[in-house]
Amino acid sequence: MNYRVAIIPGDGIGPEITREARKVLDRVCAIYGHSFEYKEILLGGASIDVHGIPLTEEAIKEARNSDSILMGSIGGDAKSSPWYQLEPEKRPEAGLLKIRKELNLFANVRPAYLYKELKEACPLRDEIIGNGFDMVIMRELTGGLYFGERKTFIENGIEKAIDTLAYDEKEIRRIAKRAFEIAIKRRKKVCSVDKANVLDSSRLWRKVVEEVAKDYPEVMLEHMLIDNCAMQLVKDPKQFDVILTENMFGDILSDEASMVTGSIGMLSSASLNEGKLGLYEPSHGSAPDIAGKDIANPIATILSAAMMLRYSFDLEKEADAIETAVKQVLIDSYRTVDIMSKGKTLVGTIKMGDLITERI
Amino acid sequence: MNYRVAIIPGDGIGPEITREARKVLDRVCAIYGHSFEYKEILLGGASIDVHGIPLTEEAIKEARNSDSILMGSIGGDAKSSPWYQLEPEKRPEAGLLKIRKELNLFANVRPAYLYKELKEACPLRDEIIGNGFDMVIMRELTGGLYFGERKTFIENGIEKAIDTLAYDEKEIRRIAKRAFEIAIKRRKKVCSVDKANVLDSSRLWRKVVEEVAKDYPEVMLEHMLIDNCAMQLVKDPKQFDVILTENMFGDILSDEASMVTGSIGMLSSASLNEGKLGLYEPSHGSAPDIAGKDIANPIATILSAAMMLRYSFDLEKEADAIETAVKQVLIDSYRTVDIMSKGKTLVGTIKMGDLITERI
Ligand SMILES: CC(C)[C@H](C(=O)O)[C@@H](O)C(=O)O
Ligand SMILES: CC(C)[C@H](C(=O)O)[C@@H](O)C(=O)O
Repeated sequence: MNYRVAIIPGDGIGPEITREARKVLDRVCAIYGHSFEYKEILLGGASIDVHGIPLTEEAIKEARNSDSILMGSIGGDAKSSPWYQLEPEKRPEAGLLKIRKELNLFANVRPAYLYKELKEACPLRDEIIGNGFDMVIMRELTGGLYFGERKTFIENGIEKAIDTLAYDEKEIRRIAKRAFEIAIKRRKKVCSVDKANVLDSSRLWRKVVEEVAKDYPEVMLEHMLIDNCAMQLVKDPKQFDVILTENMFGDILSDEASMVTGSIGMLSSASLNEGKLGLYEPSHGSAPDIAGKDIANPIATILSAAMMLRYSFDLEKEADAIETAVKQVLIDSYRTVDIMSKGKTLVGTIKMGDLITERI
Repeated sequence: MNYRVAIIPGDGIGPEITREARKVLDRVCAIYGHSFEYKEILLGGASIDVHGIPLTEEAIKEARNSDSILMGSIGGDAKSSPWYQLEPEKRPEAGLLKIRKELNLFANVRPAYLYKELKEACPLRDEIIGNGFDMVIMRELTGGLYFGERKTFIENGIEKAIDTLAYDEKEIRRIAKRAFEIAIKRRKKVCSVDKANVLDSSRLWRKVVEEVAKDYPEVMLEHMLIDNCAMQLVKDPKQFDVILTENMFGDILSDEASMVTGSIGMLSSASLNEGKLGLYEPSHGSAPDIAGKDIANPIATILSAAMMLRYSFDLEKEADAIETAVKQVLIDSYRTVDIMSKGKTLVGTIKMGDLITERI
């Protein structure tokens, strides 16, 4: 089959890691007889450098016309460029928020699991790790504080800023459904996280999630307050199967969860719309401090490409092939520096890409 | 000296643990020649049971007329009572939010440290623990999403809910000052946490914190995004000295931090106003499942009483005496069940209170 894939190299280590993912995809094409037509799109700092804005209308059009999007990472170096002093819409991140909203990518799926081979990289004690953890964070991605009205103004000589957290039942229902659909194929547990003892939006969240749950009687639903969940992820991450939550809480919990697993350089993510379009990207950031040094770990991006094959193109066996190749490289003891441990073989970004490609 | 202390036993294990703290305070009185006049105040579920509302005007007046307030814990059993279906102002938590606002307790100080004696209870690996951690979370407590306007309504047949996150420069300035004042007496590092790549309120937060920082040139200021901070607390908690953040982020981070230390049953907190009045309470919750069983750990509440002596009454040596007694009990191998480990002596709530009292 022929697929149009938009590639967003992005900032920092983004270009290096997407390059390795393309290498792997090319190999998949050659072996399984597909063809991918790539189109590069500028987003974030890379787009600001060329166009002065983080995302052009052209780029959005390009993305919309693709079958799916593979992204590296977005965001500049907070130390060298005080981006937070920029107008919101001129910041690199604004491009990412815009593409999420424009393409209606409301469902952010972030698997967080522990690689058995990388157990030593997990910050938690062996007793807590037990047989390992395997959870999925389902984060709502186009609502809440990220997209509510905001303003900064002076009132009686005092500067004041306001952000708004809004959700309607439709937005909650569609993401809740996605979470239950995923849970059904897994261990059949959904933990919905909110702050219903304080927020109105959380009370509505709970109510709608409970309604949706009625259609999935085989799935166990639990509610947890966000502060408690931030604790439980450290105390006993094994308890979680699918975590369902709103945009800002999901941002916090998914980063915490991926660090808890010790595998942040390994974790992929997908941002999906109602149909088949998705934006796939590693869970980690753009790490500008190590950009261009051939030391970044490309595995999360390569696994994001595998996720793309599975979710957007229904190419199950091709996705499996990539995932198996990654496992094999780990079994063969190759490690980038972020996951290095005693007795393993240290390799760089390009070499890691080659090793995985060879194994497909 | 004579002090008026309002006692809020609260819900769940609250009454048991405040009882032990009073026992310890009485001992301090006897030895150091002070007198504490106690007044019990109903708050939360306990107040709803008697008055139908979580906090009466009477109770607020009582609290306002005290020199300080010692609290157990608030909140019902989420399983047996679906409190989140109640009108917001009728929920137990509403009483706590109200007393914070009414008494202007804007500065929530939550120390999070690892007890050397309880190292095994820490979920993190020994390599990460190193020489231990010792940080303070300074959480803004009377602004942000907790106290912004909110509403739930129907628009075009769709139910919608809105919460508002607002901060003005004054609110930010006063909490930032408190954080720098504390940092000066510690390791001279403030990490201010926000989401300035998305929120207007966070951009104002950063700007004001930077202004305040100019008055404290000896303190190092760093900014961190909330999602990154949630990761860093797991990856390398040693890096933190004072974390300064807004209300909701502080709720999440302080719970995560106290779990990371493995000492949640041991951690006290203070909520302070501009003057000397404070509300002191354990960092943990009301644990209704173990209420009345004489197994709850009273140490966090006893240490909160010590914090009260230090911050509200300037009774340094008396506070030291309590803290030393707690340390001694741990050295003498006594443990409640939450911090129990092999070879130690298991004791209940009352016995733990007695053991600490004896050592003063
Ligand atoms: C870059 C930033 C705006 C973004 C977010 O907060 O959503 C990132 O942290 C993420 O999780 O994808
Ligand atoms: C009970 C609840 C409203 C409260 C909060 O969120 O502030 C609690 O979690 C706390 O941290 O003191």
